[in-house]
Amino acid sequence: MPAPLPVFEDLLAAAARIAPHALVTPVLRSRALDALAGAQLHFKAEHLQRVGAFKFRGACNAVWSLTEAEARAGVVTHSSGNHGAALALAARTRGIACHVVVPEGAVAAKVASIQRYGATVHACAASIVAREEMCAQVQEATAAVLVHPYTDPRVIAGQGTAALELLNATDALDVLVVPVGGGGLAAGTAIAAATLAPGCKVLLAEPEGAADTFRSLAAGQRRVDFTPDTICDGLRGSLGQPNFELLRQYAAEVVTVSDVRTVAAMRLFWQIAKQLVEPSSAIALAAVLQDPSRFAGQRIGVLLSGGNVDLDALPWGRA
Amino acid sequence: MPAPLPVFEDLLAAAARIAPHALVTPVLRSRALDALAGAQLHFKAEHLQRVGAFKFRGACNAVWSLTEAEARAGVVTHSSGNHGAALALAARTRGIACHVVVPEGAVAAKVASIQRYGATVHACAASIVAREEMCAQVQEATAAVLVHPYTDPRVIAGQGTAALELLNATDALDVLVVPVGGGGLAAGTAIAAATLAPGCKVLLAEPEGAADTFRSLAAGQRRVDFTPDTICDGLRGSLGQPNFELLRQYAAEVVTVSDVRTVAAMRLFWQIAKQLVEPSSAIALAAVLQDPSRFAGQRIGVLLSGGNVDLDALPWGRA
Repeated sequence: MPAPLPVFEDLLAAAARIAPHALVTPVLRSRALDALAGAQLHFKAEHLQRVGAFKFRGACNAVWSLTEAEARAGVVTHSSGNHGAALALAARTRGIACHVVVPEGAVAAKVASIQRYGATVHACAASIVAREEMCAQVQEATAAVLVHPYTDPRVIAGQGTAALELLNATDALDVLVVPVGGGGLAAGTAIAAATLAPGCKVLLAEPEGAADTFRSLAAGQRRVDFTPDTICDGLRGSLGQPNFELLRQYAAEVVTVSDVRTVAAMRLFWQIAKQLVEPSSAIALAAVLQDPSRFAGQRIGVLLSGGNVDLDALPWGRA
Repeated sequence: MPAPLPVFEDLLAAAARIAPHALVTPVLRSRALDALAGAQLHFKAEHLQRVGAFKFRGACNAVWSLTEAEARAGVVTHSSGNHGAALALAARTRGIACHVVVPEGAVAAKVASIQRYGATVHACAASIVAREEMCAQVQEATAAVLVHPYTDPRVIAGQGTAALELLNATDALDVLVVPVGGGGLAAGTAIAAATLAPGCKVLLAEPEGAADTFRSLAAGQRRVDFTPDTICDGLRGSLGQPNFELLRQYAAEVVTVSDVRTVAAMRLFWQIAKQLVEPSSAIALAAVLQDPSRFAGQRIGVLLSGGNVDLDALPWGRA
């Protein structure tokens, strides 16, 4: 039987649980970007969260939700990067073991973070099947608790606390734009908005080259048979089942964005806001900038999910 | 007769004058960087100032110090970039004309800013002589008031307001590390510290390839006959006469830093703090990291002067 879907009260519990460990990140404004967009942009700065990404919220909630007995064996996950680093640091805040299965081709800076936070890294092939097999092996050997990067209800509830903070810190927003990959942040945000800001549209920004959420919501059922092709390394995962259910339930809408637009928005944000956000964050700004007439004059929340960029592989070269 | 040197009261007046226009920038902390440095680092985030640099403070103070009659003819300056953009925006806040003489080879992003803020750009050859000649021509033609990038006492007083804010926002600092080029920020900081924090050492970070302040203070007289060779494009100017006098009067100390260390510190700061600072800022962090035993356990202010990076000319290439 699948775990029950998280509800708003789970977000409140998560917020209380992670408060001693996670940061309340600032909401950033920029008059230059407002002028460019012709709208009022409120950026939730999760690139300034610990480990440089919102992922710490969900991981922290999962780790601190464990019973003493569960915690003793530690936790395990598979992750292309940010969730792995987040779980490693979350485990460290509770003093328990952490195992991270990392597929080949993961961003070097993210793997280095995982190790810096003291987790044991297990390398595997890049396929989903290979990751899950390696995860199962580690679980069998250690009895560690699996914390899935985005289907785990404790993770979804934790991720929702970012929107909770944003909606509590700003006056009524018309739209909240959130990147979507596996759907942990997206689903958590949808739960938060439905209760705190029912008039606020939740808009998911998804790479054209990994548009499984777009296809799934259009079809009314999960359509996740695809090979991702996008620079947004945090959004290559396929939409999870509980995530799909929550996004359908809350009537979230998806817009797809090309990598070219995402890179342009990232560069613009670096230059104007002086904030280093990763492509998987910049896609949310790109979604706004690519459709100015839709958003003209509106109050828009933009969830900047993380800032872990591989500086050796920037999408622009030397002149 | 040269203008009188600015004093602490001039900084207070500048702070009041620029308050309606300039931002009070935040003081940033990072536990990861504290751990790396073995010290407590308090970063004054002037890369988040308007135009992306502390230069807006001095320019704004100069523009708003003009009489109505003076203001009518506008202002003129020569600048490799940040001061030009700053004066352009400052002039716009008062609704007056601005002329900026820009030497060949200036950072493209900075020239674009100057134009975006509505100033008239006058291109000239890269030499100091060429700049001053072009400036004189513009003055003759327009009667605009010259606002020198760092010798103008109104500019020095304005730049000092950054340290004023930092020292008022933090408990007693042991050291305040500030980049030095022409010496406007350095001199303003020395004035602020002497009154507000007499126990706080002012340490100037200067590129090895433009170490005229180091040589000048060592010799007891200005030694500014050199050709700068450094990636820190904001620090290539030569130490001004009033700046020299103020730095000598307040017994500022200089440490020189290689570009290699500056670039490494910049990269580190981008990755950990997710803040886009330019090399001329990162040099202050590099000065701390290159001498850990000197700073161990101390409370250190680090003045991050700006964040206007040319993303097409980063000092590291694709892997």
